[in-house]
Amino acid sequence: MIIVKIGGSKGIDDGPLLDDISALIKSGKEVLLVHGGSEETNQVAEALGHPPKFVTSVSGFESRFTDRRTLEIFTMVYCGRRNKSIVEGLQQRGINAVGLSGADGRVFEGPIKTSVKVIEDGKKKVLRGDNTGKVTKVNTKLLDVLRESGFTPVLCPPAISEEESMMMNVDGDRAAAMLAAAYHAEALVILSNVPGLLKDINAGIDNPDNLVEEIDLASDSDPYEFAKGRMKKKIMGAIEAVDSGVERVILASANVQQPISSALGGSGTHIHRSAASAAVSNAG
Amino acid sequence: MIIVKIGGSKGIDDGPLLDDISALIKSGKEVLLVHGGSEETNQVAEALGHPPKFVTSVSGFESRFTDRRTLEIFTMVYCGRRNKSIVEGLQQRGINAVGLSGADGRVFEGPIKTSVKVIEDGKKKVLRGDNTGKVTKVNTKLLDVLRESGFTPVLCPPAISEEESMMMNVDGDRAAAMLAAAYHAEALVILSNVPGLLKDINAGIDNPDNLVEEIDLASDSDPYEFAKGRMKKKIMGAIEAVDSGVERVILASANVQQPISSALGGSGTHIHRSAASAAVSNAG
Repeated sequence: MIIVKIGGSKGIDDGPLLDDISALIKSGKEVLLVHGGSEETNQVAEALGHPPKFVTSVSGFESRFTDRRTLEIFTMVYCGRRNKSIVEGLQQRGINAVGLSGADGRVFEGPIKTSVKVIEDGKKKVLRGDNTGKVTKVNTKLLDVLRESGFTPVLCPPAISEEESMMMNVDGDRAAAMLAAAYHAEALVILSNVPGLLKDINAGIDNPDNLVEEIDLASDSDPYEFAKGRMKKKIMGAIEAVDSGVERVILASANVQQPISSALGGSGTHIHRSAASAAVSNAG
Repeated sequence: MIIVKIGGSKGIDDGPLLDDISALIKSGKEVLLVHGGSEETNQVAEALGHPPKFVTSVSGFESRFTDRRTLEIFTMVYCGRRNKSIVEGLQQRGINAVGLSGADGRVFEGPIKTSVKVIEDGKKKVLRGDNTGKVTKVNTKLLDVLRESGFTPVLCPPAISEEESMMMNVDGDRAAAMLAAAYHAEALVILSNVPGLLKDINAGIDNPDNLVEEIDLASDSDPYEFAKGRMKKKIMGAIEAVDSGVERVILASANVQQPISSALGGSGTHIHRSAASAAVSNAG
């Protein structure tokens, strides 16, 4: 099983990805896709007069403040616009896709946080009315029922809260990481508009010397050394995934031919825990 | 099996419907829901600077002219906003719902028409760039796989074109009618913001004398006698459904307590073919 996450940033073309996924599935590989939609959510929210609001938590992570109206707009773009566009693209390539949010069949479940502690203008502040949560449980029953019958699920946030059954915004990379962990996937491929983790985000994305090719979690080096902004969450999700039994997490570019095959073949940033050190880790 | 269609007009509250559906399912009934979203699609299209365009075909039916951008907005509201809101509402009532469009698993399939002959300012005209089709085939495999595993599908347009696999706008009432026919449903309940077919749309919707209580398709009277505007399509869908083996089609109000149970219990306009005349019809 290969889990693929495709981001929702500006300048991502789904075409090469959908070509690659359908070729892989036809060759007998199992591929599950999780997608984002953040950039278009921002655009639609602006157009609908409810501009996006991003906050920085006290622990230093940036996230979308998701009031109920934002969540509605979020579902429009993620579950409507993008999910159905991908389903249509796969159907056109002969794959019988079924688009799902994490609320459908409770695929992505976890606790909701309705308030968030943030830093605004250097001060700590509590913002209420948030609908953001964390995927702590992947209910694979719906996915398994579909897979066993020849359907290909295509997943996206939102998730659903475990107690109140409320939809909630969750980080797509971490949802994909939990999914990869649930299936002990051979690889989690996280595709975005950059070729992987860059040493210096100002030094040009096309310079191969600027790419971190490998992070071996068994080594002594800090895996967060080069991670800035949203990359911190990607690395965190990657570490969680590897620690939960995923063999390899690869951060790679969506904007190349055969982006998944290319990543599996060596391109991008490969995050894993090398065998020798895994033994040390187990002993420790 | 009971098929329920809930419209997408102004002033429809999903709460009573979702209460009723979950109670019926818990009592052992099978209920499949198809929903619309036309009014909010119009609002979002206006807000996004792509206002809706309605055309009247040469055969006298009004429909939405659906260029590609309109179709994208359509998926945002139908498959995103409304579908996931209903899924969330059912999950909150203990029903493990799964929201699907007709493109997912190719549930609703048929031919697409990319141009439409219309009457504009009294003249016949051909409009190109349309993405509208007709559901001629319901692929029940995905629905059956879900039903057998305890999931409750929640369906909406768009459908998918049989040859090109392109998403297309289809009439939700007729999609529901085809679904009811596929399952030889005991009833198709079409809920909207009016209590059924009215004799005179200007005579008040709350006047019981104004409601057509029964249309017996076996009788000599014209079933379209009182149908104006969109009601024509509802009656057409109802006739198709009854002719395809659905016992009874009921047009009723969504805005009452237990709207489905109330319709099954006698309220609204009941469309059927009486047994005696069915025999005549079979003989004829």
